[in-house]
Amino acid sequence: MTTPVCVFQCTVPVEWTDYNGHMRDAYYGLACSLATDALMDQTGLDAASREAHHVSLYTLESHLLFLQEVKVNSQLTVQVHVLDLDHKRVHLCMELYRDDQTLVAVSEQMLAHIDTAAGKTAPFLPDTHAQLARALANRDALNSADWLGHQIRIPRK
Amino acid sequence: MTTPVCVFQCTVPVEWTDYNGHMRDAYYGLACSLATDALMDQTGLDAASREAHHVSLYTLESHLLFLQEVKVNSQLTVQVHVLDLDHKRVHLCMELYRDDQTLVAVSEQMLAHIDTAAGKTAPFLPDTHAQLARALANRDALNSADWLGHQIRIPRK
Repeated sequence: MTTPVCVFQCTVPVEWTDYNGHMRDAYYGLACSLATDALMDQTGLDAASREAHHVSLYTLESHLLFLQEVKVNSQLTVQVHVLDLDHKRVHLCMELYRDDQTLVAVSEQMLAHIDTAAGKTAPFLPDTHAQLARALANRDALNSADWLGHQIRIPRK
Repeated sequence: MTTPVCVFQCTVPVEWTDYNGHMRDAYYGLACSLATDALMDQTGLDAASREAHHVSLYTLESHLLFLQEVKVNSQLTVQVHVLDLDHKRVHLCMELYRDDQTLVAVSEQMLAHIDTAAGKTAPFLPDTHAQLARALANRDALNSADWLGHQIRIPRK
């Protein structure tokens, strides 16, 4: 299997749960968003670098499939993989696992590298691009492969 | 244009913003999640009905396109439309608007009607189904039409 380019872990607080006692759908998205922060910290886009180079990653699009419930105090692990990359965009897969190693959600995200001073997309910093390209090149089979590229629709016979 | 089946409004609190001073991506999703709660309240699935009939709506899948930034204290309006429906699933479109009427995000969501006692999908209550079916039948052009059905990928020439 593929080694993730980044792994983010958190414990589900009670504020993330809904009237059913399960993690509310939007907080799966927040775990992914926090995983993106961790990815930035790890690929040369931490706060100091973002300020020095006036750059950041902005999310253009996200897709989430909810596979299993998650309860309060669960330990959640987000594994981040690179699906595609060009000079200014990265297409990520995020796999969310529960304490018991069950895959509970799969997300795809498209992020753009932004020059925050100019207010428009800009090429990745060389170090960031090199790290993401290496992750893409080393990618192998993913547990979530069957869920990727899914379009939302009610299937009809 | 189409009249939404449900409209949800909120003011963006500072807790929803990130290091850029903009609403964090995941909180667009939370606004959609709260709009789903409002839809339930309005279509015969409020807390009393959910308890009496041991039913609920669970989100199976969601897709979000982020079009514009949103700042703290902005008034956010979520318009909910029905794109498709069968006896136990509803495919929704949610359009998110800022105070200045700008479309800031578009979401698609697939929700399933669940028998929470049996732990599996179950046909909609007749009143809920009738209201969703009426919204589907009355649906006309949507502002977000160009964004629907989008698949996440880096376009190549």
